[in-house]
Amino acid sequence: MELEAKACSESRAIKTTLVLPPDTNNHGTLFGGKLLAHIDEVSSIAALKHARKNVVTASMDSVDFLSPVTLGQTITIEAFVTYAHRTSMEIFVKVVTENVITSEERVCNTAFLTFVALDENGKPDVVPAVYPETEQERALHEAAIERAEQRKARRKRSKEFAEKFGF
Amino acid sequence: MELEAKACSESRAIKTTLVLPPDTNNHGTLFGGKLLAHIDEVSSIAALKHARKNVVTASMDSVDFLSPVTLGQTITIEAFVTYAHRTSMEIFVKVVTENVITSEERVCNTAFLTFVALDENGKPDVVPAVYPETEQERALHEAAIERAEQRKARRKRSKEFAEKFGF
Amino acid sequence: MELEAKACSESRAIKTTLVLPPDTNNHGTLFGGKLLAHIDEVSSIAALKHARKNVVTASMDSVDFLSPVTLGQTITIEAFVTYAHRTSMEIFVKVVTENVITSEERVCNTAFLTFVALDENGKPDVVPAVYPETEQERALHEAAIERAEQRKARRKRSKEFAEKFGF
Amino acid sequence: MELEAKACSESRAIKTTLVLPPDTNNHGTLFGGKLLAHIDEVSSIAALKHARKNVVTASMDSVDFLSPVTLGQTITIEAFVTYAHRTSMEIFVKVVTENVITSEERVCNTAFLTFVALDENGKPDVVPAVYPETEQERALHEAAIERAEQRKARRKRSKEFAEKFGF
Amino acid sequence: MELEAKACSESRAIKTTLVLPPDTNNHGTLFGGKLLAHIDEVSSIAALKHARKNVVTASMDSVDFLSPVTLGQTITIEAFVTYAHRTSMEIFVKVVTENVITSEERVCNTAFLTFVALDENGKPDVVPAVYPETEQERALHEAAIERAEQRKARRKRSKEFAEKFGF
Amino acid sequence: MELEAKACSESRAIKTTLVLPPDTNNHGTLFGGKLLAHIDEVSSIAALKHARKNVVTASMDSVDFLSPVTLGQTITIEAFVTYAHRTSMEIFVKVVTENVITSEERVCNTAFLTFVALDENGKPDVVPAVYPETEQERALHEAAIERAEQRKARRKRSKEFAEKFGF
Ligand SMILES: CC(C)(COP(=O)(O)OP(=O)(O)OC[C@H]1O[C@@H](n2cnc3c(N)ncnc32)[C@H](O)[C@@H]1OP(=O)(O)O)[C@@H](O)C(=O)NCCC(=O)NCCS
Ligand SMILES: CC(C)(COP(=O)(O)OP(=O)(O)OC[C@H]1O[C@@H](n2cnc3c(N)ncnc32)[C@H](O)[C@@H]1OP(=O)(O)O)[C@@H](O)C(=O)NCCC(=O)NCCS
Ligand SMILES: CC(C)(COP(=O)(O)OP(=O)(O)OC[C@H]1O[C@@H](n2cnc3c(N)ncnc32)[C@H](O)[C@@H]1OP(=O)(O)O)[C@@H](O)C(=O)NCCC(=O)NCCS
Ligand SMILES: CC(C)(COP(=O)(O)OP(=O)(O)OC[C@H]1O[C@@H](n2cnc3c(N)ncnc32)[C@H](O)[C@@H]1OP(=O)(O)O)[C@@H](O)C(=O)NCCC(=O)NCCS
Repeated sequence: MELEAKACSESRAIKTTLVLPPDTNNHGTLFGGKLLAHIDEVSSIAALKHARKNVVTASMDSVDFLSPVTLGQTITIEAFVTYAHRTSMEIFVKVVTENVITSEERVCNTAFLTFVALDENGKPDVVPAVYPETEQERALHEAAIERAEQRKARRKRSKEFAEKFGF
Repeated sequence: MELEAKACSESRAIKTTLVLPPDTNNHGTLFGGKLLAHIDEVSSIAALKHARKNVVTASMDSVDFLSPVTLGQTITIEAFVTYAHRTSMEIFVKVVTENVITSEERVCNTAFLTFVALDENGKPDVVPAVYPETEQERALHEAAIERAEQRKARRKRSKEFAEKFGF
Repeated sequence: MELEAKACSESRAIKTTLVLPPDTNNHGTLFGGKLLAHIDEVSSIAALKHARKNVVTASMDSVDFLSPVTLGQTITIEAFVTYAHRTSMEIFVKVVTENVITSEERVCNTAFLTFVALDENGKPDVVPAVYPETEQERALHEAAIERAEQRKARRKRSKEFAEKFGF
Repeated sequence: MELEAKACSESRAIKTTLVLPPDTNNHGTLFGGKLLAHIDEVSSIAALKHARKNVVTASMDSVDFLSPVTLGQTITIEAFVTYAHRTSMEIFVKVVTENVITSEERVCNTAFLTFVALDENGKPDVVPAVYPETEQERALHEAAIERAEQRKARRKRSKEFAEKFGF
Repeated sequence: MELEAKACSESRAIKTTLVLPPDTNNHGTLFGGKLLAHIDEVSSIAALKHARKNVVTASMDSVDFLSPVTLGQTITIEAFVTYAHRTSMEIFVKVVTENVITSEERVCNTAFLTFVALDENGKPDVVPAVYPETEQERALHEAAIERAEQRKARRKRSKEFAEKFGF
Repeated sequence: MELEAKACSESRAIKTTLVLPPDTNNHGTLFGGKLLAHIDEVSSIAALKHARKNVVTASMDSVDFLSPVTLGQTITIEAFVTYAHRTSMEIFVKVVTENVITSEERVCNTAFLTFVALDENGKPDVVPAVYPETEQERALHEAAIERAEQRKARRKRSKEFAEKFGF
C-alpha cells in the first residue's frame, strides 16, 4: 500500500537559540561542532515529521561556514524535507544568525542531510513521497535527484579509498 | 525622543526541540524545570528582538503543567511581546508538545513573563511600544494592563510577606 | 488506611551551587531559566522525601526575580512541604545568593510549587498529611488553603482563556 | 595583621541532588567521576566561605567508593573546613545517598581535600585559622596535622617517582 | 619569513570517549550531531597543534555515517593535518567505534575538514607547510590539492545557488 | 578456566580535549572536579578494554594537582591497566596539559585508580592477568602489589574511623 504524499511544508521545523558561553571557544565565537549538532537535531525533527517513524542520519553533504557567530547572537536553524526516495529523505537546512542588538542578519550556512526511516527492527522502512509548493521548494526538489546521484558516486569513491588504506 | 512602535509579530521567536534522555526523570517524562528553562530562553529572545537591548527576566506568572511530555516527543515553544510599558515587556509563551509518531499535538502550558530592558550600566531602559495585528494579539494586548496591575499588587503582598518572616 | 502525618522539616532539601560560566548570559548574570530549573529540582526532592513516591510538577506560582545573581556567587535553594491535600503537596522554596568574597547575602526569590504524587500507573496517589513545627512553618501552612483555592480559580480562568483563543 | 579565627561550622556547605540519566552509565549506576566532580564543587564552596578569597584544589586524598548509587536516588554532599594552615585548608566531605522511595540512607564515601587560597596575582595567600566546636569537628581537627605531614611525605615520594620515570 | 614545515604526525590528536545516555536518542543510538561535534573538536586540536595559532572551522566535506553507534560503546576520533596551503589546513579524521565487551571494531566514518588560522585581529594568518612520512599520509597529502580545487568549485556553486534563492 | 593474560598496552586509552568555558571557574582555570571526571572516564575505558566486562570504580588513590590548567589549553589523559588481581584492576593515569600556542607541555598529575569487573548480576567477576612489556610498565607493575596492600590497610582504617564517628 502506497503512503500518501506530503507537502514540503508539513515537515518544516525551526529552532532559534541564543549563543551562550558553553557554545563558544575562548575567543567568543561559536564552535563549528555545536552548529553541526543543532543542524542534525533540527533536520532529524523535520525527518520525523515527514516519516512519522524513527529516523537516523545517513549522511551530511559538505558544509561551508560562511561567517563567524559570536556570543549573544541568536541562530535560527530551519529545515524541511525536499525530496524522499524509498526509505531515505533529503533535508535542506538553512542557518541564519542575528545580532539581536543591531538586528543585522546573515546566512551562516546551508546544508543537505540525508535521513533514513527505520522500522521497529531497525531496518530501513518506506516513507511518503514529497511534493513542493513554493518556487524555492520546487527548485530544491528538482535538483535533488542529481544530488542523490552524486552521493552514490561519492560513497563508491569513499569505499574504494577506505579499502585501499585498510580503514 | 520616542522609539517607534513595533508589531507583536516582529518579536516572535520559535524553538522546536526533541525531548532527550538528559531532559527526563527516571520515568521518562520531562522535568518541569527543563521546560521552564526553555520558556525563559525563548521569551528572552522575543524580548531582545523587541528591545534591541540587553534584557533580564523580572518575573514569571504562574504556570500550570497540563500534561506530561515524554521521551522522544518534540516541544515547540513560541513567544512574542504582547505589551510594553516604559522599560518592561510582557511576553506570552505557548508550549505545544507533539508525539512525532502519531502527530498528536497538545498544549502543555501557556505563560506570561515580564522582561526589563537594561542600558550599558545595567539600569532599566526604555523600549518601543507594541501594537497588535491579529485578533489573538489584540485580546492579549488589551488584557495586559490588568495583568500588570495584578503583578504590582502581588509584588506588594510578597514584600509584606517577606518582611513578616524575615526573608 | 491513613498514612501517618509528617513534619515539614522531614522533607527539607538544600542545594548550594556555584554560578559558573555556562549558567550565565553574555553579561555575566544568571539566567532566570537556570534558577527556575534549580527551584524545580530541589522542590521535587522535598516532594519525594514527603511522598516517598514518584512525583510530578503540577504548577508553579508566580516568581519575582528580585536581584541579579552574578558569576562566581553561590545560590542556596531550600525547599520543604508546607501543606499536603489528598494527592498534592505545596512546596515553599527560598533562594538566597551569597557573594562568597564579601559574604553579603540576598534573597533572590521565594516561590510556591505544587507537586502531585503518582502511583505505578502514573495516576495521582495519596500522600501523608503535613504538620508545621516552627512559627514560620505554621504561618505558611495556615495560608496554604487559601492559596490552593486561588490556584483552582486560576486554573479555571486559564482554561476559559485557552478555549476562547483556541489554544 | 592576623585574620580572626572562624568556626568549622561557618564554612559548612550542603548540596542535595537527584541522580539523573546523564549521570549514569549504561547500567543505571552513577559514574565515580560525576561524584568526584560534585565533591570538588561542594568542597570549593566550603573553602570559599572560609577564605573569602579565590581558591584552587591542591589535592584530594584517596577515596573509596563503598556502594553504588542508582538512578533516581539522591546524593547529599556535605563539606566543611576542618583545619587551616598558612594558605591551605583541609576540607572534610561526606557523601550520603538516599533511596527516596524507601528512605534508606547509606554513606557512599568520605574524603579529605586540600584547597589553597590565592591573591589577585594567583599567589598563595593567608587564610584564617579554624576552631572546632563539636566532638566530631574536634576529632577531625586534631588528626589533621598528622594527615598534613603524610601529604608532604606523599608529595615528596610522588616527585621522586615522577622523576625516575621521566613524567 | 617562511615558517618551518612540519610532519603530519606532529599534529595528530586522539580522543576516545564512552557513549553515554545524554549522547543517544530514545533508541539508544548515538546522534549524528554529537559525533559531528566530536569530529570538529578533535580536528580543531590537530589544527591548533599544527598552526600554533587560533583557528576556526571553514568547512566540512560530506560525511557518510556507515554504522550506528550504541550506548556503552567507545568511539575513537583521530585527526591530523594532511595538507596546508597559505592560511588553511586540511584535516583528515577517522572515527572508529568499539564494542568494549566483544572488542569488535568498526570504522564509523572518515571526514575532511578545513580550518583557517587567525591572527590577533581575527584575520587569516599563514601556517607552516606539511610533509607526509607514511604511505597513508603521502596518499592523503597528494590527493589534497585536487580536493582543494573541488572545494573551490563547490563554494562557487553554493554562492550562485544562494543568490538565486535570495538566502 | 583461566583467562589468558594480556599486555598492559592492550588496555591503553587516550583522550585529548580542549579546556572550554564550561570547564573553568570565574578565573579561567580548570576545576579539579572536571579533571577528576575525565580521569575516571578514561580509566574506565582502560578497565573495560582489559576486562571486556562491565566495570565500576572501587577507589582512587590520592591526587595532587601540580599546576593550573587554563582556558584554551588541551589536556591529554592517558590510562592503562598496570596490574590485575582476581576481580580488581589497578589503572595508572597520566594527565599532561599543553599550551597549544607555545607547545609547552606539563604533567598536571598522575593517579592510580582501582576498578572492579562485574558479572551480569553485579557481582565481582574475574579478569585476565596483566603482563608489562616496557621498563616503565614493569616498574609500575612490580610496585602494584605493595600499593594494593596499602589500600587494604587504608580501607580498614577508614572503616574504623567511620564507625567511631557514626558515619
Ligand atoms: C498534575 C497531574 C498529574 C494532575 O492530574 P489530574 O488528572 O488533573 O488529576 P486530578 O484532577 O485528580 O488532581 C490530582 C491533584 O492534583 C491537583 N492539581 C491538578 N492540577 C494542578 C495544578 N495545575 N496546580 C496545582 N494542583 C493541581 C489537584 O488539585 C488534585 O489535588 P488533591 O489530590 O490535593 O485534591 C496532570 O495534570 C499531569 O500529569 N500534568 C503534567 C505534569 C508534568 O509532567 N509536569 C512536568 C511538565 S514538563
Ligand atoms: C528587574 C529589575 C531590573 C527591576 O529593577 P528596579 O530597580 O526594580 O526597576 P524599576 O522599579 O525602575 O522598574 C523597572 C520596570 O520593571 C518592572 N518590574 C520590576 N520588577 C518587576 C517584577 N517583579 N515583575 C514585573 N515587572 C517588574 C517595573 O514595573 C518597571 O516597569 P515599567 O518600566 O514598565 O514601568 C531588577 O529587579 C533586577 O535586576 N532583578 C533581577 C533580574 C534577573 O537577574 N533575573 C534573573 C535572575 S536568576
Ligand atoms: C567495588 C565493589 C563492587 C566491591 O564489592 P565487594 O562486595 O567489596 O567485593 P569483594 O570484597 O569481593 O572485592 C572484590 C575486589 O574489589 C577489591 N576492592 C573492593 N573495594 C576496594 C577499594 N575500595 N579499593 C580497591 N579495591 C577494592 C577487593 O580487593 C577485591 O579485589 P580482588 O578481586 O582483586 O581480590 C563495591 O564496593 C561497590 O559496588 N562499590 C561501589 C562502586 C561504584 O558504584 N562506584 C562509583 C560510585 S559513584
Ligand atoms: C596549589 C598551588 C597553588 C600551590 O602552589 P605552590 O607554589 O606549591 O605554593 P607553596 O609551596 O607556597 O604552598 C602553598 C600551600 O599549599 C600547600 N600545598 C601545595 N601543594 C599541595 C598539595 N598537593 N596538597 C596539599 N597541600 C599542598 C602547601 O603545603 C602550602 O600550605 P601552607 O600554606 O598551609 O603551608 C599550585 O600547586 C597550583 O596552582 N596547583 C594547581 C591547582 C589547580 O589548578 N587545581 C585544579 C587542577 S584541574
